[in-house]
Amino acid sequence: MPNSQNKITAALIIIGNEILSGRTKDANLNYIASQLIRLGIDLYEVRVVRDQESQIIKAINELRESHNYVFTTGGIGPTHDDITCESVSKALGRRYILNADAHAILKDYYDGSDKELNEARLRMAYIPEGAKLIENPISKAPGFIVDNVIVMAGIPAVMQAMFQGVAPLLETGNRIFSKSLSVMAGEGDIAKSLGELQTKWKLVEIGSYPFVKNNNYGTTLVLRTSDLKTLNSAFEDLKAFISPLDVIFEINDDE
Amino acid sequence: MPNSQNKITAALIIIGNEILSGRTKDANLNYIASQLIRLGIDLYEVRVVRDQESQIIKAINELRESHNYVFTTGGIGPTHDDITCESVSKALGRRYILNADAHAILKDYYDGSDKELNEARLRMAYIPEGAKLIENPISKAPGFIVDNVIVMAGIPAVMQAMFQGVAPLLETGNRIFSKSLSVMAGEGDIAKSLGELQTKWKLVEIGSYPFVKNNNYGTTLVLRTSDLKTLNSAFEDLKAFISPLDVIFEINDDE
Repeated sequence: MPNSQNKITAALIIIGNEILSGRTKDANLNYIASQLIRLGIDLYEVRVVRDQESQIIKAINELRESHNYVFTTGGIGPTHDDITCESVSKALGRRYILNADAHAILKDYYDGSDKELNEARLRMAYIPEGAKLIENPISKAPGFIVDNVIVMAGIPAVMQAMFQGVAPLLETGNRIFSKSLSVMAGEGDIAKSLGELQTKWKLVEIGSYPFVKNNNYGTTLVLRTSDLKTLNSAFEDLKAFISPLDVIFEINDDE
Repeated sequence: MPNSQNKITAALIIIGNEILSGRTKDANLNYIASQLIRLGIDLYEVRVVRDQESQIIKAINELRESHNYVFTTGGIGPTHDDITCESVSKALGRRYILNADAHAILKDYYDGSDKELNEARLRMAYIPEGAKLIENPISKAPGFIVDNVIVMAGIPAVMQAMFQGVAPLLETGNRIFSKSLSVMAGEGDIAKSLGELQTKWKLVEIGSYPFVKNNNYGTTLVLRTSDLKTLNSAFEDLKAFISPLDVIFEINDDE
């Protein structure tokens, strides 16, 4: 459940026609998911939407009500299809205005380059009124955080730099610990015992992920919970029923 | 807009905690997006959700109303966390029952193997009443199509085989054609002219995607539309304003 005690949840909106047309492979979801879990923030849902105002506004408004944070990637550049900042302004009922600090950052950057801070580039300093900037050490045009919405670039290197800038500002939740093992047995061979394990350890999230290795089916089993003692006990139970079955070839104490 | 004349739209729901925790990188979105565009089916939205009944049902019911097709991947195996089939049944108000054909497929497969069709594996033959099976040539447990919902496996090789099985059954829309070029100029240098091009060619979707090459900024420009003549005319306009600016290093007639 989102927003229960000590539980911090987030959603991610990936904005861009190029992902939905298959032209570009998204590279941001996995990075953000991996980072959030280290912060004890539970990524609850991801939506990939078009560069279309109504769709962006709908996603923002549905998700910001239910989660502590909504991250967005993409659509903050200078071209006509970059409509994230204006759409976020509308979703939040805030004015879409020239931010003086963002303006100063861009002016400083372009004054020192052979490029011009023209009207198109100046658009990148227009953001929702009241937003706090997120530094962009790479290409300068900043991201921002406004209410619980965090707006970042789509280019992975820029997004990652922005994420590292905003991470210290986020409220963090209970750290989630996990342990996993892989076994050369099909999911169907262990499903019953695994279901019983899940029934016994209700507070542990038990995931089962099949794979194929040397033409044989194997299964990776992942236990996740915020309580380390519970995790260790449940993992001992898991090993106890798995070990007679087949070769365990890997045990990971995940971060 | 979804469902306007000759426009076939789809949504995709990727089901699995392992994607949202960052443990697994999704490999299905890009494949499905690329395949759908060849069929003239417009992928409109993607959601990544947990192995959680309420979240799956909500996503199914919101998206099936708005789109011709809703695809799902993941959660159709034999373990306790595989709850897609039951959740889809509930979303559609259909009984969740043992499908005789799916049962026969699994019985035939496991009779000829050293594995047992136990209770857990038999769960893979439980699907919504009235569903039509999608063959799984790899690991046999079938996917299915019911109403406008198409349920597929999460393992990429299995999902791809299922997709190829279901593709001939889909209603196809107007084929989308695209052309692209890349130019060693920043988005900000071409944004104004590009915006004017978009205003002139309203039926062409014009996308602008920045990249970095040898420490210089470049931009890939993509034109997409279902009318080939319009595409060619708009592309000539694009080249006319781009060519004086900088070196065009790639022109693609995309499929």
